[in-house]
Amino acid sequence: MASTGGGSLLIAWQLKDKTVLIVGGGEIAAQRIDSVLTTDACILLVCPSEGLSTRTAQLVSIHSTRITHFDRLFSGRGELTNVDMVLTALDDNERSRDICELCRERKIPVNAADIPDLCDFYFGAQIRDGPLQVMISTNGNGPKLAALVKDKIKSSFTGKEGEAITKVGRLRSQLKERAPGVGGAVGKKRMRWMSSICEKWSMDDLAMLDEPAMSKLLEEGWEKNRVPSPKEILETSGTTTSMAIAPSHIVISGVVVGAICMALTLVLKRR
Amino acid sequence: MASTGGGSLLIAWQLKDKTVLIVGGGEIAAQRIDSVLTTDACILLVCPSEGLSTRTAQLVSIHSTRITHFDRLFSGRGELTNVDMVLTALDDNERSRDICELCRERKIPVNAADIPDLCDFYFGAQIRDGPLQVMISTNGNGPKLAALVKDKIKSSFTGKEGEAITKVGRLRSQLKERAPGVGGAVGKKRMRWMSSICEKWSMDDLAMLDEPAMSKLLEEGWEKNRVPSPKEILETSGTTTSMAIAPSHIVISGVVVGAICMALTLVLKRR
Repeated sequence: MASTGGGSLLIAWQLKDKTVLIVGGGEIAAQRIDSVLTTDACILLVCPSEGLSTRTAQLVSIHSTRITHFDRLFSGRGELTNVDMVLTALDDNERSRDICELCRERKIPVNAADIPDLCDFYFGAQIRDGPLQVMISTNGNGPKLAALVKDKIKSSFTGKEGEAITKVGRLRSQLKERAPGVGGAVGKKRMRWMSSICEKWSMDDLAMLDEPAMSKLLEEGWEKNRVPSPKEILETSGTTTSMAIAPSHIVISGVVVGAICMALTLVLKRR
Repeated sequence: MASTGGGSLLIAWQLKDKTVLIVGGGEIAAQRIDSVLTTDACILLVCPSEGLSTRTAQLVSIHSTRITHFDRLFSGRGELTNVDMVLTALDDNERSRDICELCRERKIPVNAADIPDLCDFYFGAQIRDGPLQVMISTNGNGPKLAALVKDKIKSSFTGKEGEAITKVGRLRSQLKERAPGVGGAVGKKRMRWMSSICEKWSMDDLAMLDEPAMSKLLEEGWEKNRVPSPKEILETSGTTTSMAIAPSHIVISGVVVGAICMALTLVLKRR
């Protein structure tokens, strides 16, 4: 069981067709805009133009269809009409506090960058690769370490994870078309088969599933109630399976190289 | 820049002194309880006793101070008074839908396990190690792959990350006591020095910082405006620094072993 208490509830907030208000235009605002651009939300940015950092101004101009910029200070509760989330990025505690109070009255989730105690939620370091999103939170114990953990996680990825997830999503849809039905026996059978594929195949192999390979996998696997190997499916459909170099291979190669060198040395010496 | 659109906003929701209502008592409810126990929220669980899974019943009895169980069906909007978040874990779409609508009316964030479209937020695979929390979301493309990515991330960790983060948090507090002041020049100097330590020291080294080592680090590092090595601080304060084996070491060891074996073979053969 996980250790209890003291942590946050890490969740994936849905912002499709929602409106997020960002107040302030500095570096933190740019970070917030980046985070919200990950979603499909509309962004309202309230900040006098002279307060925009270079990066914020750039984002506003690149994403002009997603971001509406109001060149003025936050003007009061009227700003909150039809807003689903508020993020303040101000260097002014008092104004942040006022905005938080207005949000609280209307039960609008709010994050104030400069007043952690008033936040409904925090941000963390994030990784995104297509449909894959990873968030790292240190619960306020240092953003630097969150960034280091993020780098560590990133370097453990092969870079094919996002694609693998996309392909598995597509395979699952095709399987559902082939064997429709919600819940019950067929649903469970689908889930078991998909799980077995994900367990037997590496991420890199899953990422290589193209349309012909998917059809072959469903034909040779699902229809025959078995779990084919990546080799069986990918090689015949024109792609080649991934090759991972195991640490044992490195050791063996080293031993062989050492042996050859020593043999040459001794043989040449004897002459 | 991150790829835009189509994703979720991954956030760390704060639930200190908040109340979370969970409706339903099966396996999903147990998972929800586990997630919420990570935080400091009070949990209200509404489900007839006969509907509790073994695991849910166990959690209710172990965490009796955190979880209040109401042995009945969800009775209507009265249940939502003073509730800050609602999680339904029912096998009954219609009841889930009704509860979601009541939540929407009162602007209470809600997750309905059986109706993704009505959810304000989703859950993902999670890792917790003390103050460190990691969440993995595939944005609905398969929980199995989220679990695989989670395992991959876990195996890239040394297991010292949580402790390292705790120690860095403590070091930062001690530094703030020694050099107080919010923002401004001293705040920036503190941040720079802490960042340099986190960059120069490995997680395993940071995890070994005990009280005497922290004092020494502040004395020899902060006060002298330099970044001491882990060796300098940890060895003299009675702990030993961590040793990582680089791949190059493996290769060199292999070469040496191979050379020795071949030398022995040739020498023995000559006799």
